[in-house]
Amino acid sequence: MPHIALPEGLPGIRGPMAFRPETARPLNELVDVLLRGPHSLTPGERELIATVVSAENECRYCQTIHGAIAAHHLGGDDALVQAVKADHEHQAISPKLRALLAIAARTARSGRDVTADDIARARAEGATDLEIHDTVLIAAVFCLCNRYVDGLATWMPEDPDFYRQRARMIAEQGYTASTVAPPQATPAQRTAR
Amino acid sequence: MPHIALPEGLPGIRGPMAFRPETARPLNELVDVLLRGPHSLTPGERELIATVVSAENECRYCQTIHGAIAAHHLGGDDALVQAVKADHEHQAISPKLRALLAIAARTARSGRDVTADDIARARAEGATDLEIHDTVLIAAVFCLCNRYVDGLATWMPEDPDFYRQRARMIAEQGYTASTVAPPQATPAQRTAR
Repeated sequence: MPHIALPEGLPGIRGPMAFRPETARPLNELVDVLLRGPHSLTPGERELIATVVSAENECRYCQTIHGAIAAHHLGGDDALVQAVKADHEHQAISPKLRALLAIAARTARSGRDVTADDIARARAEGATDLEIHDTVLIAAVFCLCNRYVDGLATWMPEDPDFYRQRARMIAEQGYTASTVAPPQATPAQRTAR
Repeated sequence: MPHIALPEGLPGIRGPMAFRPETARPLNELVDVLLRGPHSLTPGERELIATVVSAENECRYCQTIHGAIAAHHLGGDDALVQAVKADHEHQAISPKLRALLAIAARTARSGRDVTADDIARARAEGATDLEIHDTVLIAAVFCLCNRYVDGLATWMPEDPDFYRQRARMIAEQGYTASTVAPPQATPAQRTAR
């Protein structure tokens, strides 16, 4: 049971987002820019970064939904997503993405763990400053989302079909458009308990 | 030296924010809503939550600037801010804020560390669902900011006066207005601020 009274029927981050639309709007906008905006990294690559960070933080909801979105973008290759989650250093992905995932995993533990060697490795594999910046920021944003989801003890469905369907919707429509809140409780209803 | 080429002269988070204004805008908006929006917790209390989380994550820039903003809101009581950073369980703050800071410190480590007992304690001290929600989200947002600042190895000034002056500006004008350069500013003007 969630720690606070959240709107019912909305799994994971969507419960607290419906509870507090004032913060959900800029947060969804931030995620849309980072994961879906015009970029030299594909949406699938960026969703893999989000998935690996969520796995590092052991956030089941985030790693499941973003893993499903990554698989959707990667032609349905869920086996690759699961393999990258388990070990991102030895899979059939580009050396540049491998280096960026290493930076993301360090950032998940602490920003202070990212070393000049990690950056030099990514740059040697062709990563630009923008790609390095966005890797660090995507990792940081998912450290936020993972804590938001788990810190309020939100619930999640177990059926993998739920995530596949939701992944398709998000891939097609984006985060902001897919997170339509139900009729909103007033602030007074929200604070009353 | 920062890991990537950031605009010069902008300390801490302001360098990467100037580098990537598309993500800076929603992030500043999120922080403005959480720390400065209408609320039953004072701005000083919310800045203390941000400061304690940044201290947990050992982010020097964030704990220094948000500690200075907290002190500004608390009538200049920097000694209280430093004491709360060192030990938030035994200082002259309300029992409700003490319980919320405990939730924030747990969230900083992992959302999964927040227990039903932590929530029950906060509720027994009068915390509302909205206050608990915002405590978790403020903590999560600063886990983002701390990693963004340190993951890119940004620089920071050492002079405490810098933070006191900047704290006054942010307290008066807000994060969005204080951080994002106006569109007409030249890079040289932006770095001089």
